[in-house]
Amino acid sequence: MAKKTKASVKKEPPVILVTNDDGVTAPGIRNLVEAVKDLGKIVVVAPDKPQSGMGHAITIGQPLRMHKIHTAENVETWSCTGTPVDCVKLAVDKVLHRKPDLCISGINHGANHSINVIYSGTMSAAVEAAIESIPSVGFSLLDYSLEADFTGARKYARIIVEKMLKTKSDKHTVLNVNIPSVPVEFLKGMKICRQAYAKYVEDFIERQDPHGRHYYWLTGEFVNFDKGKDTDVWALANNYVSVVPVQFDMTNYVLKTKLEKSWK
Amino acid sequence: MAKKTKASVKKEPPVILVTNDDGVTAPGIRNLVEAVKDLGKIVVVAPDKPQSGMGHAITIGQPLRMHKIHTAENVETWSCTGTPVDCVKLAVDKVLHRKPDLCISGINHGANHSINVIYSGTMSAAVEAAIESIPSVGFSLLDYSLEADFTGARKYARIIVEKMLKTKSDKHTVLNVNIPSVPVEFLKGMKICRQAYAKYVEDFIERQDPHGRHYYWLTGEFVNFDKGKDTDVWALANNYVSVVPVQFDMTNYVLKTKLEKSWK
Repeated sequence: MAKKTKASVKKEPPVILVTNDDGVTAPGIRNLVEAVKDLGKIVVVAPDKPQSGMGHAITIGQPLRMHKIHTAENVETWSCTGTPVDCVKLAVDKVLHRKPDLCISGINHGANHSINVIYSGTMSAAVEAAIESIPSVGFSLLDYSLEADFTGARKYARIIVEKMLKTKSDKHTVLNVNIPSVPVEFLKGMKICRQAYAKYVEDFIERQDPHGRHYYWLTGEFVNFDKGKDTDVWALANNYVSVVPVQFDMTNYVLKTKLEKSWK
Repeated sequence: MAKKTKASVKKEPPVILVTNDDGVTAPGIRNLVEAVKDLGKIVVVAPDKPQSGMGHAITIGQPLRMHKIHTAENVETWSCTGTPVDCVKLAVDKVLHRKPDLCISGINHGANHSINVIYSGTMSAAVEAAIESIPSVGFSLLDYSLEADFTGARKYARIIVEKMLKTKSDKHTVLNVNIPSVPVEFLKGMKICRQAYAKYVEDFIERQDPHGRHYYWLTGEFVNFDKGKDTDVWALANNYVSVVPVQFDMTNYVLKTKLEKSWK
């Protein structure tokens, strides 16, 4: 009997789960699928409607539904009534029935640098995957427009997905990748960064309905309080693709040590 | 003219913002207000309906409304249509018109230890306050029942709020406090902990509607993968009140250093 050599074992292609928060029909997710389509078996499970700003919300009080839709050739695509985090959970348990090799989320229409990582449905889906021991990456382009140019974002999404598939990442790895909205030839490459302390300073707009009752629209001005040159905000302002490694252990260890002494 | 001595300057009472995710009429928030009512000027801005599992969601696509309701004597209380995070943002910008001295969230009906910090509306409200430079604490009782006994939770909520008001905390301080559901005399005191790596392992329940279409209910079993004795899960299992200092910088610095070398 012939001995099985390493080369003769047919290697299954990696399974890549794709999701987002702008909804399954958004140009961003279509561009992401197209950028990496030949790198593995792609399965898309994404929200049926925009879910921006949903953070790490999950659906407890209502049931969820999913249905198959056609988007790209040979790409199994499911439209789901839940949040981005629900999509990851459902994909693993009811679509794939296994953990995918990689989860990618996006490409988000708009920035998810600095504190946005915590409000973003795109990034929360990636974080959820990492909680479930699936290495993951969230991609965001600094352009809200539906007609945005995804050339640069696609280029770096492919580079990073190839890197992730080639190297064995820790199963809890999450990367938050943001791409400046400039022509691809102006991009200076990738920079590994920390999350800047930069945030929206809120200013609700107050209006009155025809019955004289007040209502409020959330709005705000983005302010960078962080002057460091090692942050994602700095990198993006200088035409780098920012890559922030993210973790879901939210313990403040410095304060923990302090309180252990002072709360005695 | 008499010199103003330190004692003659009338000190304004501290302003304490109270919110939650179980809704403004939940027993948990009523108990929290009663526990700390005499420690400052209390203002409640909380969701008008249950918002458990909303994580750090914010409302972008719809306007928000608030209206004043009567709950406890001398406690200004607002019921808000938004998420817990929206409530904090609106409270600061449109109710208080200033930053409160402290924000407290809860008392949640049910545990928010370990990974729950990331799904919890209660904790996300507290984290939002810290992002806005307001020291904050989230309180959760390990009992889902509306008839839960809040005696122990009230006792420790008061101890911790007094501590926070007495000592000058860093403005980004967030504490995640969980209280075991045991009679108060069994509580062994507080323990400063780290967030355990413990999580729900999902298992969606699949059903069919009368038209033959599938729908899914999120459910799951809680599993502790973390055997450390310095975690919140360990502390709670041993009848300690767990106190985890939380941060909103989600950068994984260990992985950052690694990638800076290997991605060259």
